[in-house]
Amino acid sequence: MVIVMKHQASAEDIGKLVAHIEALGFKAHLSSGAERTIIGVIGDERGLEPENFALFDGVERAMRVLHPFKLASRDYHPDDTIIHINGVAVGGKNIPIIAGPCSIESREQLFEAARAVQAAGAKLLRAGAYKPRTSPYSFQGLGLKGLELLKEARDAYGLPTVTEVISPNDVTLVAQYADVLQIGARNMQNFALLNAVGETQKPVLLKRGMMSTIEELIMAAEYILAHGNARVMLCERGIRTYETATRNTFDVNAIPVLKQLTHLPVIADPSHGTGHWNLVTPIARSAIAAGADGLIVEVHPDPTQAFSDGGQSLKPEKFAQLVAQARKIAQALERTI
Amino acid sequence: MVIVMKHQASAEDIGKLVAHIEALGFKAHLSSGAERTIIGVIGDERGLEPENFALFDGVERAMRVLHPFKLASRDYHPDDTIIHINGVAVGGKNIPIIAGPCSIESREQLFEAARAVQAAGAKLLRAGAYKPRTSPYSFQGLGLKGLELLKEARDAYGLPTVTEVISPNDVTLVAQYADVLQIGARNMQNFALLNAVGETQKPVLLKRGMMSTIEELIMAAEYILAHGNARVMLCERGIRTYETATRNTFDVNAIPVLKQLTHLPVIADPSHGTGHWNLVTPIARSAIAAGADGLIVEVHPDPTQAFSDGGQSLKPEKFAQLVAQARKIAQALERTI
Amino acid sequence: MVIVMKHQASAEDIGKLVAHIEALGFKAHLSSGAERTIIGVIGDERGLEPENFALFDGVERAMRVLHPFKLASRDYHPDDTIIHINGVAVGGKNIPIIAGPCSIESREQLFEAARAVQAAGAKLLRAGAYKPRTSPYSFQGLGLKGLELLKEARDAYGLPTVTEVISPNDVTLVAQYADVLQIGARNMQNFALLNAVGETQKPVLLKRGMMSTIEELIMAAEYILAHGNARVMLCERGIRTYETATRNTFDVNAIPVLKQLTHLPVIADPSHGTGHWNLVTPIARSAIAAGADGLIVEVHPDPTQAFSDGGQSLKPEKFAQLVAQARKIAQALERTI
Amino acid sequence: MVIVMKHQASAEDIGKLVAHIEALGFKAHLSSGAERTIIGVIGDERGLEPENFALFDGVERAMRVLHPFKLASRDYHPDDTIIHINGVAVGGKNIPIIAGPCSIESREQLFEAARAVQAAGAKLLRAGAYKPRTSPYSFQGLGLKGLELLKEARDAYGLPTVTEVISPNDVTLVAQYADVLQIGARNMQNFALLNAVGETQKPVLLKRGMMSTIEELIMAAEYILAHGNARVMLCERGIRTYETATRNTFDVNAIPVLKQLTHLPVIADPSHGTGHWNLVTPIARSAIAAGADGLIVEVHPDPTQAFSDGGQSLKPEKFAQLVAQARKIAQALERTI
Repeated sequence: MVIVMKHQASAEDIGKLVAHIEALGFKAHLSSGAERTIIGVIGDERGLEPENFALFDGVERAMRVLHPFKLASRDYHPDDTIIHINGVAVGGKNIPIIAGPCSIESREQLFEAARAVQAAGAKLLRAGAYKPRTSPYSFQGLGLKGLELLKEARDAYGLPTVTEVISPNDVTLVAQYADVLQIGARNMQNFALLNAVGETQKPVLLKRGMMSTIEELIMAAEYILAHGNARVMLCERGIRTYETATRNTFDVNAIPVLKQLTHLPVIADPSHGTGHWNLVTPIARSAIAAGADGLIVEVHPDPTQAFSDGGQSLKPEKFAQLVAQARKIAQALERTI
Repeated sequence: MVIVMKHQASAEDIGKLVAHIEALGFKAHLSSGAERTIIGVIGDERGLEPENFALFDGVERAMRVLHPFKLASRDYHPDDTIIHINGVAVGGKNIPIIAGPCSIESREQLFEAARAVQAAGAKLLRAGAYKPRTSPYSFQGLGLKGLELLKEARDAYGLPTVTEVISPNDVTLVAQYADVLQIGARNMQNFALLNAVGETQKPVLLKRGMMSTIEELIMAAEYILAHGNARVMLCERGIRTYETATRNTFDVNAIPVLKQLTHLPVIADPSHGTGHWNLVTPIARSAIAAGADGLIVEVHPDPTQAFSDGGQSLKPEKFAQLVAQARKIAQALERTI
Repeated sequence: MVIVMKHQASAEDIGKLVAHIEALGFKAHLSSGAERTIIGVIGDERGLEPENFALFDGVERAMRVLHPFKLASRDYHPDDTIIHINGVAVGGKNIPIIAGPCSIESREQLFEAARAVQAAGAKLLRAGAYKPRTSPYSFQGLGLKGLELLKEARDAYGLPTVTEVISPNDVTLVAQYADVLQIGARNMQNFALLNAVGETQKPVLLKRGMMSTIEELIMAAEYILAHGNARVMLCERGIRTYETATRNTFDVNAIPVLKQLTHLPVIADPSHGTGHWNLVTPIARSAIAAGADGLIVEVHPDPTQAFSDGGQSLKPEKFAQLVAQARKIAQALERTI
Repeated sequence: MVIVMKHQASAEDIGKLVAHIEALGFKAHLSSGAERTIIGVIGDERGLEPENFALFDGVERAMRVLHPFKLASRDYHPDDTIIHINGVAVGGKNIPIIAGPCSIESREQLFEAARAVQAAGAKLLRAGAYKPRTSPYSFQGLGLKGLELLKEARDAYGLPTVTEVISPNDVTLVAQYADVLQIGARNMQNFALLNAVGETQKPVLLKRGMMSTIEELIMAAEYILAHGNARVMLCERGIRTYETATRNTFDVNAIPVLKQLTHLPVIADPSHGTGHWNLVTPIARSAIAAGADGLIVEVHPDPTQAFSDGGQSLKPEKFAQLVAQARKIAQALERTI
């Protein structure tokens, strides 16, 4: 931590602060210039709250200098983490595509979607049984019935599955039916839920909150890692900005930033990232080009009839085109799909 | 809902869409102009998804025309809702102030804070036992021990209490110890938690998510109301913008907007709203002037020692000044504090 | 400036950087801890670019520690600046209200507005002759003809005038007709224009850009001050955020922040700040309560016929109510209107 | 335009509004449902202001249904516009790269940069003589001397040039020295400047404002087109969001949205888009993958010595790697670099 003193700070102000720093078990190094004094606080700053230091007399500002995460950090774990999910590796040279409908609506709809995405080259099946919806009057998902259908589809098509869990109470149940637990954007800082999935040994797909910083996303992963579950995939899914031409602003920049800061695989969700089916394919290409380790894409047999997210879902034939184009971009980077 | 057709939409496109609208039990009214046709969908649109209609051939856009909320709406319930909490009324002419420390740290700290805020004129005591923290390495709250201390302080000073609940599993327990259940900003769209507090008959203080629109805040309240709990207070606590001079941007505009759209009381949180103790008092004044029905303010006996939110906590004497100033603004509007 | 070295930075890295700092005429103070070294750069950092230092081997981050402004700073000029405009003082205990139509449309419209705002208590008249419009097909203002009408209205009602200038070429002309030169939000960083108004001795009303930080606003004022014109009023007029319930998000927080950082008067524009006439009065009250030194409000004799900004313009009788309410808030703070 | 009436609107309210619409020369079509009436306004709505209609009694909302642009619209001009700049075509199958230093600092620096970017495959040279800087104390550019150096470098290396113009007064001069006039982000809505470049026949590179919507960018282009200059290139250069890990958030989504809405070429600026040299190459790749028609990249012989933007400038050898990688992505899409 660095503490910048005000121009007019007195020797007494500085003395009191240094005494406080030392009482906490840290060392204080002073740099005194013509205009002001800067105090470097030496020691592991992760437990300190800069804002408390800013309250001392004579202090202008106190700033953290280290990133607050550790287990998720590339400094701590320099090599890429590769997560194995029933034979599918995420985080290596191959770029798996996760696809399927937003919601599980019926056996027929789910199976038709599963068949189509598998035929087009998807390696995992996504579909929601518990749906977080803005309105209490919207379809809330089939719940347990949905999980059962998902397991059937998984076995029928040989695709490991990804599904969202929205309450700590449901974690054990969902973990029995699905291969990957998804934490949705609205729950990225639902710490009770993060702790619950951290205590399973299931892979987790952790979506960035729609107005969460990259650092907060990594800190949310840190919760899961600190509870003993090392198999976390980070997912960029669009952030909220002032722009309304797209539902969200897919933050492609987050992909290389996350790859630099952490060792965890980074998945891109161009469906939620844009909110419009006709933007999904170009944004999927751009995500791969930026270094994404996987894609998660919404596909529905008939989007006009979808119970949720129809506007951003691809028809199966459009999804097949997406896979073909994404594959060419992957090859240009010497990766595979 | 209104559907705008493309310039080049064919009669067949329009015919198919009208047939689809009628098959769903709605009526379609066509306005055909020189440049394009507009279709009004007549009926209760709340169950419709505009994005699905936008997928039909020839459609340019489909837009909702009604607000999606009902129970929380002032149209539905024109008079202000007044919530009674052990003798304190919220939503009427009097403007109660809720105050206390961010976290319960010890009996001594909590009692000192309670005594001070009561002396200064606060009507309810706030303090957290379960703390949602960005870092897993930060203080997470005293939990049950904290709830017990809170109940003691409540009885000692005769102040009803407000405390946060962060997991559906804890709702029943927290409801036994506290008078008002607080839903924090990060959990505003934690629907499992909204449903759980909706099933109690405890008053709820619902904080706006830092990434949430005013409409989404009202829809979150709608979840609680739809589960049978009518005692919801809405709380503006600052939103996330590009500006970094303040921790959050307290959205004072939300106060009159909420008062126009809903009948629920609106509380302002200038502590989280700004993140800096020296902005709390002017923003508290501005919130009252804009029409807020209450304030919630962080007060700590010694902010430099606070386990959380020290930078935005007021010392007791500063809080007393805030109350005095807020009272003058209230009087200028013919209200009381 | 503070430079944080990487954990793995070598002694050679540090040595090179220190040599570079010294070659630039600064001193380098090292704080070496267990985890990393921090270098304090001692000297007037305003001319340094932190990003260039971040490029040296072994550097993690370089951060500025001082605010980049000087003439506008309260450190440099502790007392409030009071600006006198033909007998109206801005920045003192009295809070003048500037009001009038968005655009000058006709003599009749302008005179009717001027008469009404004067009767209600406004001290200055605002009206635009040069209009920056998003669309080239929208009304662009009456230009010179508008300036002439504005001068007539000024003389007829004894109200000093505020009008926008949008090109450096027009500054001399506009300065002949108006008492205050307004720089609009879209031109806040039009540096050619800032320099041009800086070279006049006319008071300037400088509006914050809709996505400019508070620091950038002060730096724009610094351009004007550095060109020799000390009579600058800063104006908060709403920023752009994700929220769409209001046209802009009036950032009430900017008022106390600006009052702390600078000595310049701060004016609030609740009309652009919210974009809806029925929010203008509560937000005007909140701005005064937060410490604003003046208001600028759009008033039109018949908003349904306005050539621009009809939706946010008050009718004369609503404006009179605004003045009455704002006055009560001012009195609660021991100020006058 | 569509006008949604309130539930409680009276027949008289509707009658008055219809009369007003017809008096303006438009037709009104009514759709009356159980809950409310919707009025479609039939005619060319571009000259109407929805907000004025929203002021009539009984009106809930008035919404535009058409995009407000025309000349820039793909509806109006379905084929891609290709702009020829001294033998370099922009907007076709080939993707030219524009590169060079942020500022012209000296003949040596400029020539070294020009030689390096040409050798690496750049087709145009960028460099600034007039610099819009946040601080009046920062380097403001070499002005005319810079333009002369730029022309020398152009002739020496056979690279057409792109340089920024910041005042309408300078347009004629800059047009004599450079091949493309750049409008910077801060001037995107400097309408006096847009009009001035619209009256030349020079190609224009128009950068998106950091606070501007995609629609506003297209409307700014519309100003230039409406003044008779059809050679406009649009440039995405990052927008301002709450995220601070990058200087700006490069909005990759804008690329396919702009390609759908307009016929103008779209250029990507990954240097300003991210603000960090080590993100420039992955974001350059992602922009090409999303469909960009060109890149503009900052390159400096020694970024640690740059007068501006050192942190986001590439060294020549890094730029050569960028070109090689971008070329592979272009080939994957059957385009060339």
